[in-house]
Amino acid sequence: MVNHRLDRLFHALADPTRRAMVERLCRGPASVSELKEPFAMSLPAVVGHLKVLEEAGLVTTSKQGRTRTCQIEPNALRQAEQWLAGQRTEWERKLDRLGTLLEET
Amino acid sequence: MVNHRLDRLFHALADPTRRAMVERLCRGPASVSELKEPFAMSLPAVVGHLKVLEEAGLVTTSKQGRTRTCQIEPNALRQAEQWLAGQRTEWERKLDRLGTLLEET
Repeated sequence: MVNHRLDRLFHALADPTRRAMVERLCRGPASVSELKEPFAMSLPAVVGHLKVLEEAGLVTTSKQGRTRTCQIEPNALRQAEQWLAGQRTEWERKLDRLGTLLEET
Repeated sequence: MVNHRLDRLFHALADPTRRAMVERLCRGPASVSELKEPFAMSLPAVVGHLKVLEEAGLVTTSKQGRTRTCQIEPNALRQAEQWLAGQRTEWERKLDRLGTLLEET
Protein backbone atom coordinates (compact mmCIF):
# COMPACT_ATOMS: atom_id res chain seq x y z
CA MET A 1 0.00 0.00 0.00
CA VAL A 2 3.03 2.23 0.47
CA ASN A 3 3.22 2.51 -3.32
CA HIS A 4 -0.35 3.79 -3.64
CA ARG A 5 0.41 6.29 -0.91
CA LEU A 6 3.37 7.59 -2.93
CA ASP A 7 1.14 7.71 -6.06
CA ARG A 8 -1.32 9.97 -4.25
CA LEU A 9 1.43 12.02 -2.60
CA PHE A 10 3.29 12.83 -5.80
CA HIS A 11 0.03 13.34 -7.70
CA ALA A 12 -1.09 15.87 -5.06
CA LEU A 13 2.23 17.72 -5.33
CA ALA A 14 2.12 17.87 -9.15
CA ASP A 15 -0.17 20.92 -9.08
CA PRO A 16 1.13 24.46 -8.41
CA THR A 17 -1.97 25.53 -6.44
CA ARG A 18 -1.74 22.50 -4.18
CA ARG A 19 2.00 23.07 -3.66
CA ALA A 20 1.26 26.71 -2.76
CA MET A 21 -1.31 25.46 -0.23
CA VAL A 22 1.27 23.10 1.27
CA GLU A 23 3.78 25.97 1.43
CA ARG A 24 1.21 28.13 3.22
CA LEU A 25 0.27 25.39 5.71
CA CYS A 26 3.92 24.69 6.50
CA ARG A 27 3.96 28.20 7.97
CA GLY A 28 1.02 27.33 10.24
CA PRO A 29 -2.63 26.18 10.23
CA ALA A 30 -5.17 28.15 8.21
CA SER A 31 -8.91 28.28 7.72
CA VAL A 32 -10.28 27.36 4.29
CA SER A 33 -10.99 31.05 3.54
CA GLU A 34 -7.45 32.08 4.56
CA LEU A 35 -6.15 29.33 2.31
CA LYS A 36 -8.37 30.55 -0.55
CA GLU A 37 -7.26 34.19 -0.25
CA PRO A 38 -4.17 34.29 -2.50
CA PHE A 39 -5.90 32.42 -5.34
CA ALA A 40 -8.24 33.78 -7.97
CA MET A 41 -10.29 30.63 -7.56
CA SER A 42 -13.81 29.63 -6.56
CA LEU A 43 -14.44 28.05 -3.16
CA PRO A 44 -15.43 24.69 -4.74
CA ALA A 45 -12.13 24.65 -6.67
CA VAL A 46 -10.17 25.30 -3.46
CA VAL A 47 -12.15 22.61 -1.64
CA GLY A 48 -11.43 20.22 -4.52
CA HIS A 49 -7.67 20.82 -4.18
CA LEU A 50 -7.94 20.41 -0.41
CA LYS A 51 -9.65 17.05 -0.92
CA VAL A 52 -6.75 15.80 -3.05
CA LEU A 53 -4.30 16.97 -0.35
CA GLU A 54 -6.35 15.22 2.35
CA GLU A 55 -6.58 11.98 0.35
CA ALA A 56 -2.80 12.08 -0.04
CA GLY A 57 -2.46 12.42 3.74
CA LEU A 58 -0.71 15.78 3.34
CA VAL A 59 -3.38 17.84 5.07
CA THR A 60 -5.90 17.20 7.84
CA THR A 61 -8.88 19.42 8.52
CA SER A 62 -11.05 19.88 11.58
CA LYS A 63 -14.25 21.84 12.03
CA GLN A 64 -15.11 24.10 14.92
CA GLY A 65 -18.42 25.87 14.61
CA ARG A 66 -18.51 27.15 11.02
CA THR A 67 -14.75 27.31 10.57
CA ARG A 68 -12.78 24.48 9.04
CA THR A 69 -9.09 24.63 9.95
CA CYS A 70 -6.43 22.97 7.77
CA GLN A 71 -3.13 21.62 9.05
CA ILE A 72 -0.12 20.14 7.33
CA GLU A 73 0.85 16.53 8.02
CA PRO A 74 4.66 16.69 8.00
CA ASN A 75 5.01 12.89 8.00
CA ALA A 76 3.52 12.69 4.52
CA LEU A 77 6.02 15.26 3.19
CA ARG A 78 8.76 13.25 4.89
CA GLN A 79 7.67 10.03 3.15
CA ALA A 80 8.00 11.60 -0.29
CA GLU A 81 11.33 13.16 0.71
CA GLN A 82 12.62 9.83 2.00
CA TRP A 83 11.79 8.01 -1.22
CA LEU A 84 13.70 10.65 -3.20
CA ALA A 85 16.64 10.62 -0.77
CA GLY A 86 16.74 6.81 -1.02
CA GLN A 87 17.09 6.97 -4.81
CA ARG A 88 19.79 9.62 -4.59
CA THR A 89 21.73 7.52 -2.07
CA GLU A 90 21.52 4.50 -4.37
CA TRP A 91 22.84 6.61 -7.25
CA GLU A 92 25.68 8.07 -5.15
CA ARG A 93 26.67 4.56 -4.01
CA LYS A 94 26.83 3.52 -7.64
CA LEU A 95 29.07 6.54 -8.38
CA ASP A 96 31.34 5.63 -5.44
CA ARG A 97 31.68 2.05 -6.73
CA LEU A 98 32.56 3.40 -10.17
CA GLY A 99 35.16 5.72 -8.58
CA THR A 100 36.74 2.82 -6.68
CA LEU A 101 36.79 0.74 -9.86
CA LEU A 102 38.53 3.55 -11.76
CA GLU A 103 41.14 3.94 -9.01
CA GLU A 104 41.85 0.20 -9.08
CA THR A 105 42.40 0.08 -12.82
CA MET B 1 9.29 28.04 -15.11
CA VAL B 2 10.61 26.27 -12.02
CA ASN B 3 7.00 25.61 -11.06
CA HIS B 4 6.21 23.87 -14.32
CA ARG B 5 9.31 21.79 -13.86
CA LEU B 6 8.08 20.66 -10.44
CA ASP B 7 4.64 19.92 -11.94
CA ARG B 8 6.24 17.59 -14.47
CA LEU B 9 8.62 16.07 -11.92
CA PHE B 10 5.95 15.18 -9.36
CA HIS B 11 3.56 14.04 -12.10
CA ALA B 12 6.24 11.70 -13.46
CA LEU B 13 6.84 10.26 -9.98
CA ALA B 14 3.14 9.71 -9.28
CA ASP B 15 3.15 6.41 -11.21
CA PRO B 16 4.50 3.16 -9.69
CA THR B 17 5.97 1.90 -13.00
CA ARG B 18 7.82 5.16 -13.55
CA ARG B 19 9.11 5.14 -9.97
CA ALA B 20 10.33 1.55 -10.49
CA MET B 21 12.14 2.72 -13.65
CA VAL B 22 13.78 5.55 -11.69
CA GLU B 23 14.79 3.06 -8.97
CA ARG B 24 16.31 0.78 -11.62
CA LEU B 25 18.19 3.63 -13.32
CA CYS B 26 19.58 4.87 -10.01
CA ARG B 27 21.47 1.57 -9.91
CA GLY B 28 23.00 2.30 -13.32
CA PRO B 29 22.15 2.97 -16.99
CA ALA B 30 19.96 0.47 -18.84
CA SER B 31 18.78 -0.20 -22.37
CA VAL B 32 15.07 0.16 -23.09
CA SER B 33 14.68 -3.64 -23.22
CA GLU B 34 16.47 -4.09 -19.90
CA LEU B 35 14.17 -1.45 -18.46
CA LYS B 36 11.14 -3.24 -19.91
CA GLU B 37 12.11 -6.67 -18.50
CA PRO B 38 10.51 -6.59 -15.02
CA PHE B 39 7.18 -5.27 -16.31
CA ALA B 40 4.34 -7.21 -17.92
CA MET B 41 3.95 -4.33 -20.32
CA SER B 42 4.12 -3.69 -24.06
CA LEU B 43 7.12 -1.86 -25.53
CA PRO B 44 4.95 1.15 -26.54
CA ALA B 45 3.69 1.42 -22.94
CA VAL B 46 7.27 1.38 -21.62
CA VAL B 47 8.33 3.97 -24.21
CA GLY B 48 5.36 6.12 -23.17
CA HIS B 49 6.47 6.05 -19.52
CA LEU B 50 10.04 6.82 -20.59
CA LYS B 51 8.79 9.83 -22.51
CA VAL B 52 7.10 11.23 -19.38
CA LEU B 53 10.34 10.69 -17.42
CA GLU B 54 12.35 12.41 -20.17
CA GLU B 55 9.95 15.38 -20.33
CA ALA B 56 10.30 15.74 -16.55
CA GLY B 57 14.09 15.84 -16.98
CA LEU B 58 14.46 12.71 -14.82
CA VAL B 59 15.91 10.52 -17.55
CA THR B 60 18.03 11.12 -20.63
CA THR B 61 18.41 8.61 -23.44
CA SER B 62 21.04 8.20 -26.13
CA LYS B 63 21.12 5.91 -29.13
CA GLN B 64 24.09 3.88 -30.31
CA GLY B 65 23.35 1.67 -33.28
CA ARG B 66 20.03 0.01 -32.50
CA THR B 67 20.32 0.30 -28.74
CA ARG B 68 18.82 3.17 -26.81
CA THR B 69 20.43 3.62 -23.39
CA CYS B 70 18.62 5.36 -20.53
CA GLN B 71 20.31 7.26 -17.73
CA ILE B 72 19.03 8.92 -14.59
CA GLU B 73 19.41 12.68 -14.17
CA PRO B 74 20.13 13.02 -10.45
CA ASN B 75 19.70 16.81 -10.52
CA ALA B 76 16.01 16.44 -11.27
CA LEU B 77 15.53 14.09 -8.30
CA ARG B 78 17.45 16.59 -6.18
CA GLN B 79 15.13 19.45 -7.23
CA ALA B 80 12.06 17.59 -6.04
CA GLU B 81 13.86 16.58 -2.84
CA GLN B 82 14.93 20.18 -2.21
CA TRP B 83 11.41 21.52 -2.55
CA LEU B 84 10.17 18.96 0.00
CA ALA B 85 13.09 19.63 2.36
CA GLY B 86 12.38 23.37 2.11
CA GLN B 87 8.78 22.85 3.24
CA ARG B 88 9.86 20.61 6.10
CA THR B 89 12.40 23.20 7.25
CA GLU B 90 9.72 25.89 7.19
CA TRP B 91 7.46 23.69 9.28
CA GLU B 92 10.22 22.84 11.77
CA ARG B 93 11.07 26.54 12.14
CA LYS B 94 7.43 27.21 12.92
CA LEU B 95 7.54 24.45 15.57
CA ASP B 96 10.69 25.96 17.09
CA ARG B 97 9.04 29.38 17.29
CA LEU B 98 6.03 27.79 19.01
CA GLY B 99 8.38 26.02 21.45
CA THR B 100 10.12 29.29 22.31
CA LEU B 101 6.77 30.99 22.76
CA LEU B 102 5.63 28.25 25.15
CA GLU B 103 8.85 28.50 27.17
CA GLU B 104 8.42 32.26 27.46
CA THR B 105 4.86 32.04 28.76
